[in-house]
Amino acid sequence: MTRIAENSREIRFDSLVAEEPLEIRVGGRPLAVTMRTPGNDFELATGFLLSEGLITGAADVATISYCPGPDAQAFNVLDVAFTPGVRPPADNAARPFLTTSSCGLCGKASIDDVRSKSVYDVRADPMRLPASVLCALPERLRAAQKVFERTGGLHAAGVFDGDGTLLCLREDVGRHNAFDKAIGWAAMSGRLPLRGKVILASGRASFELVQKALMAGVPMLAAVSAPSSLAAELAEEAGMTLVGFLRGDTMNIYTGAERVV
Amino acid sequence: MTRIAENSREIRFDSLVAEEPLEIRVGGRPLAVTMRTPGNDFELATGFLLSEGLITGAADVATISYCPGPDAQAFNVLDVAFTPGVRPPADNAARPFLTTSSCGLCGKASIDDVRSKSVYDVRADPMRLPASVLCALPERLRAAQKVFERTGGLHAAGVFDGDGTLLCLREDVGRHNAFDKAIGWAAMSGRLPLRGKVILASGRASFELVQKALMAGVPMLAAVSAPSSLAAELAEEAGMTLVGFLRGDTMNIYTGAERVV
Repeated sequence: MTRIAENSREIRFDSLVAEEPLEIRVGGRPLAVTMRTPGNDFELATGFLLSEGLITGAADVATISYCPGPDAQAFNVLDVAFTPGVRPPADNAARPFLTTSSCGLCGKASIDDVRSKSVYDVRADPMRLPASVLCALPERLRAAQKVFERTGGLHAAGVFDGDGTLLCLREDVGRHNAFDKAIGWAAMSGRLPLRGKVILASGRASFELVQKALMAGVPMLAAVSAPSSLAAELAEEAGMTLVGFLRGDTMNIYTGAERVV
Repeated sequence: MTRIAENSREIRFDSLVAEEPLEIRVGGRPLAVTMRTPGNDFELATGFLLSEGLITGAADVATISYCPGPDAQAFNVLDVAFTPGVRPPADNAARPFLTTSSCGLCGKASIDDVRSKSVYDVRADPMRLPASVLCALPERLRAAQKVFERTGGLHAAGVFDGDGTLLCLREDVGRHNAFDKAIGWAAMSGRLPLRGKVILASGRASFELVQKALMAGVPMLAAVSAPSSLAAELAEEAGMTLVGFLRGDTMNIYTGAERVV
């Protein structure tokens, strides 16, 4: 690349974050394609299926395999075989919230859709966390991120224990993929639901991230940056604690403030 | 919300960026749902259809209308009627890159797919731009952003003329939506292709953003943050100039450096 700074112009080498398509199939049928950073692909697929309510845990998955092929590109397609008895995805499964006839799409409908899929009650989670523990998480996440330093291009998701111990860090060029990998890790390691845990997003908190946290039974989602309106509404409806702008020793708690002491 | 800072804890009011689902239909048939910030929805739909190669310009669209209904939520569903003779989307149109049989998905296939859809040759665009003009764009974009100051939650896309004049600014909770709105604006105002223009992203540059710029005929994409590997590959293949880390008086030019003088 060409680096321009003040009055200089020079050729340098640079590292870029990898981005490649991943096609997720179920029973051989294509379900979705996501542009992701290669790595932890089985977790990504498991987390995606969990987020969409197509499975409720790793027990619903019999096997996951890359499609066999002569090329490296075979690692961009994977096939998930459901356990016998688990219902295969409907044709429109990969297009959530698609209304079928009347005009009835709204934030409320999206929230109801997610809540109807969720099997965990995070509202009942009695976890309490000192604000000081929360404040330490972003720096801990940052310290554990390896790729970011070189490329500046990765979103991260971290799962922390109630005492602030980092249990799992996943990175991806896509914010939603980083979350899918993290909750896919939880499913594959038999840790669902993630009771008493915190999931930390390195950027903003969208509706989709709250959805993923809810599907994994996480009672607290913290983000370094801003949440959206619908993210806060879903968190409120679900009884999840939503923290935004977690920086230094300050934070904004949008819902479930009683859990931060 | 509850604001925690050092040793204080107080209740405050805060503004959050709006996020709502938008369902895009073509000829009454649901095509896609995106979580977006309401506003400029017709541009968003037009830009989305253009990005996916389903239309080549505003002339392919006869009408766009919100679905009529008694509720405000009717503004979350819109229907696009194509001009007679324009081919309607295939059933799998909203799921790009889905392979159909063999295992053959890779970055190269994604690039080929986009290039086959593109009708503009940005490589032939002779535009030249002083580095000093480029360096001034982020601050100009920032100054024009109204919502960000209050919510901290919006991605922005800006279309600039070759002399650094801001022609169009669009904001959204989703990075791709901000780009769709901006190129939808270009299509609806009869400005395609965007020859000699720069499109600026407030964050990172992904494959998808390069794709959208290419479909609108923009010869230069600049981003305040990092590009991904596949974004740089597509830009290189297409002959587009890709600038990253455009901050202060410095920048990294990953492809097409000859356009920055």
